[in-house]
Amino acid sequence: MNRLYHYPLSPFCRKVRLSLAEKKIEVELVEERYWEKDPDFLRRNPAGKVPVLKMGNRTMADSTAICEYLEDAHPTPALLPATPEGRYEMRRLVAWFDDKFNAEVTTKLMGERVFRKVMGTGYPDSTNVKAGAKAIKYHIDYMTWLLDQRRWLAGDQMSLADFAAAAHLSCLDYISDVDWNRSEVVKDWYAKIKSRPAFRSILADQVPGFPQPAHYADLDF
Amino acid sequence: MNRLYHYPLSPFCRKVRLSLAEKKIEVELVEERYWEKDPDFLRRNPAGKVPVLKMGNRTMADSTAICEYLEDAHPTPALLPATPEGRYEMRRLVAWFDDKFNAEVTTKLMGERVFRKVMGTGYPDSTNVKAGAKAIKYHIDYMTWLLDQRRWLAGDQMSLADFAAAAHLSCLDYISDVDWNRSEVVKDWYAKIKSRPAFRSILADQVPGFPQPAHYADLDF
Repeated sequence: MNRLYHYPLSPFCRKVRLSLAEKKIEVELVEERYWEKDPDFLRRNPAGKVPVLKMGNRTMADSTAICEYLEDAHPTPALLPATPEGRYEMRRLVAWFDDKFNAEVTTKLMGERVFRKVMGTGYPDSTNVKAGAKAIKYHIDYMTWLLDQRRWLAGDQMSLADFAAAAHLSCLDYISDVDWNRSEVVKDWYAKIKSRPAFRSILADQVPGFPQPAHYADLDF
Repeated sequence: MNRLYHYPLSPFCRKVRLSLAEKKIEVELVEERYWEKDPDFLRRNPAGKVPVLKMGNRTMADSTAICEYLEDAHPTPALLPATPEGRYEMRRLVAWFDDKFNAEVTTKLMGERVFRKVMGTGYPDSTNVKAGAKAIKYHIDYMTWLLDQRRWLAGDQMSLADFAAAAHLSCLDYISDVDWNRSEVVKDWYAKIKSRPAFRSILADQVPGFPQPAHYADLDF
């Protein structure tokens, strides 16, 4: 049985979960409190991070390397665009969300509001929370600009770029930090992704100490 | 004419420069002091970082997305391994160097010793410098472990993983922060890369205020 070591509110794990589910690859989800640095877990991934995917006798780390591997080894349905230019744009956007959005928004909001409590590293830093709340607006505006020209973030086809973005936004939505009224096109785009069967497991996530808000799993949010 | 907006001591730019040179794609190098946030430059890349590659009428950002594009659109010589498993390992290692090595070593040493001076953001923080000097040892040991089993970092073929690693190490070598005596296999591996024609432009780099040390461009270091 394939196994994914993950943490429910990790956008990097969610990106991989979406990709696996879209390709109908079954995995057992194993929750890993990776910051506790369990020696067994560190043996599986010396980088000490989730996700870690065990498929057969292979153990793989790094969400982007895993998603590219899944495209390579399980190409249907394709989550990579068909042209080199399309694939470039997709990879640029995956990096945009996983690097820039993550640093400017996710770590500032999730990191302060959730991970400090879960990891026991003190109270949220309100300067970071404010900076994250401000930065998410610009990112939603950037997505609006992209989606005004395209059906999906990287082009006319759903791709890993959409999954990367939805992975971050869905984590933030779990703590009610996304203002869906800011952009109709972004809300419509998220509604399309949210209603996919691949999204169900993410909508079922529950984190102790952080009850799921009512709108989170509602397809008519 | 293709144009690469870069900064000489940026490992991300060096990775792209190596890839372009190995594929014999000529580019004009344009030095970009990206932290000064010139509006023209921000228009080319809203993420505000180098490298930015202009090829024909396309402008591309993000070093990994650019390198993957070059493999896609200019596949010869291949810097991607031939199998999905090989490509996974290569991508894992590129992320290892560009994320983990960068955070633990490059930003701690280059960031403090060079960029603070160049950007005018104060004196080096000695705690960071010490942490970086300690972390590079573990990373060289990890490379030794890999190279004891393989000719190149990701397998039997030179790949983008080697270029990512060499890009970081060559920047650190410019400020004499690599102890080549720590590992013979790592030194041999670096000597092989360093002697490639693709490396010449990197060995010719000069940064005002930081004279090139004698061993830096010496193939017999």
